[in-house]
Amino acid sequence: MRVVLSGICNTDLEIARGYAGFSGTIGHEFVGVDEDGKRVVGEINAGCGECELCRAGDSRHCAARTVLGIHGRDGAHAEFLQLPRVNLLPVPEDVPDEHAVFTEPLAAACGVLERVTINSDDRVAVIGDGKLGLLCAQVVALTGASVVLIGKHAEKLRIAERRGIETASPKLAAKRKRELDIVVEASGSASGFGLATGLLRPRGQLVLKSTFHGKTELDAAPIVVDEISIVGSRCGRFAPALDLLKKKAIDVDSLISEEYPLSKGVHAMRRAGTKGILKVLLRPL
Amino acid sequence: MRVVLSGICNTDLEIARGYAGFSGTIGHEFVGVDEDGKRVVGEINAGCGECELCRAGDSRHCAARTVLGIHGRDGAHAEFLQLPRVNLLPVPEDVPDEHAVFTEPLAAACGVLERVTINSDDRVAVIGDGKLGLLCAQVVALTGASVVLIGKHAEKLRIAERRGIETASPKLAAKRKRELDIVVEASGSASGFGLATGLLRPRGQLVLKSTFHGKTELDAAPIVVDEISIVGSRCGRFAPALDLLKKKAIDVDSLISEEYPLSKGVHAMRRAGTKGILKVLLRPL
Repeated sequence: MRVVLSGICNTDLEIARGYAGFSGTIGHEFVGVDEDGKRVVGEINAGCGECELCRAGDSRHCAARTVLGIHGRDGAHAEFLQLPRVNLLPVPEDVPDEHAVFTEPLAAACGVLERVTINSDDRVAVIGDGKLGLLCAQVVALTGASVVLIGKHAEKLRIAERRGIETASPKLAAKRKRELDIVVEASGSASGFGLATGLLRPRGQLVLKSTFHGKTELDAAPIVVDEISIVGSRCGRFAPALDLLKKKAIDVDSLISEEYPLSKGVHAMRRAGTKGILKVLLRPL
Repeated sequence: MRVVLSGICNTDLEIARGYAGFSGTIGHEFVGVDEDGKRVVGEINAGCGECELCRAGDSRHCAARTVLGIHGRDGAHAEFLQLPRVNLLPVPEDVPDEHAVFTEPLAAACGVLERVTINSDDRVAVIGDGKLGLLCAQVVALTGASVVLIGKHAEKLRIAERRGIETASPKLAAKRKRELDIVVEASGSASGFGLATGLLRPRGQLVLKSTFHGKTELDAAPIVVDEISIVGSRCGRFAPALDLLKKKAIDVDSLISEEYPLSKGVHAMRRAGTKGILKVLLRPL
């Protein structure tokens, strides 16, 4: 298909630094136009189509999968890309390209709800005020649970505050020791991990949404003594995310910092890695 | 109450080495005779009695709790001990002292089932052929799930084999990469942690049953990519454990290595820390 718009994810920056050992075209957030001229987005895990998981319609953990712009398959920061037809979903007419390009990261945020049950009386913290944290906080807030977004950047926190979401600095948040039912770690830093375990009540759940650079130290004793759960979460399904975009239930406009033509991709990547910048979009042609 | 028999746990050895900073009488596995002359066992977490958790009848995570022989309360390797009456359970007549003294560690093994749901078609591994691993393997086997106990000691593995439980060495087990639904880590070593994550299928669950000495290195990437859950598990309730002992559903006799009078406690502790030795019991008088 022809790529209309793609988004730069922090994972792209990690891959460019050598994480995951991928060589090829990066990019896994996009909106495109398929061979029939229809606007589409596409789930990024392309399965073998034959294993039990694929036959059940979910290729996210197919052992033989390729992953768009991440593993074995050229990605979306390009004029054209290829994905199996089964991965594609049509974009509703009233969802503009600039929103549809957020389907993948919003699906990842929705994926939290696949991994833990969040009830309306739960107290939840999201750590990290980057793109992923801002999406996770908004998705969790839709459950009716009380949410606090923890971050260091006032201007980013304000995006959540405008949606009625409470925010706090890591220092302030550390005063809520052992008070929270669920913490979503979306900061991608090892310090977020330590903060997270400190905030959780006994039998609380920590959702790991972002990987850390390299290894972090784990003290298993408090996990056993307080019976904490640590739950990994990666990709989500696209349908619920597209539904939220159609309903305009999530503010993605505020997450767009800059847009560049694809030909300025290297510069755009540099900008995406600059402090204070949220989503950077790339447009072919 | 008067202590009739107590059991030495690996945690006792850890505490004697300085883990948890406890000073006082150690020991938390016991059978005793209360003031009315009745044989009793006792849950080891003594709560404040007033917080929400205690009022709901479960003091295991009361923030103000003392823990018998572990935290703020003298323990069971003594002639007498004190516990709140609410913690005590009568020992059924047909359960001998030598079985009843296993109520606490067996309850801890049963506690795994409080933290993860194990179905009869699940493939489960228990890592560690010590006392805790042998109890966990037997408890999990009762669910009907297929269980493999992974350990290095042929004579300990044989105890499980006699109960029809499959066993394997860590090397052999490592050939089952990504095949298992649930792994219970009961070896207390950091190498067990690495083996465990390697055995799990995507979205599998790792139950941490024992703490490690100090810190271990955690590579968060595979937890996120494979969406693994790591679930801490500590104390279990005594009632299900007593029920299993009454039904003779668990072989605890094979776990008893030696018995000493309490006056030989220091020697008994040394024996309990000796390779190849399983449960060492202490008898006052």
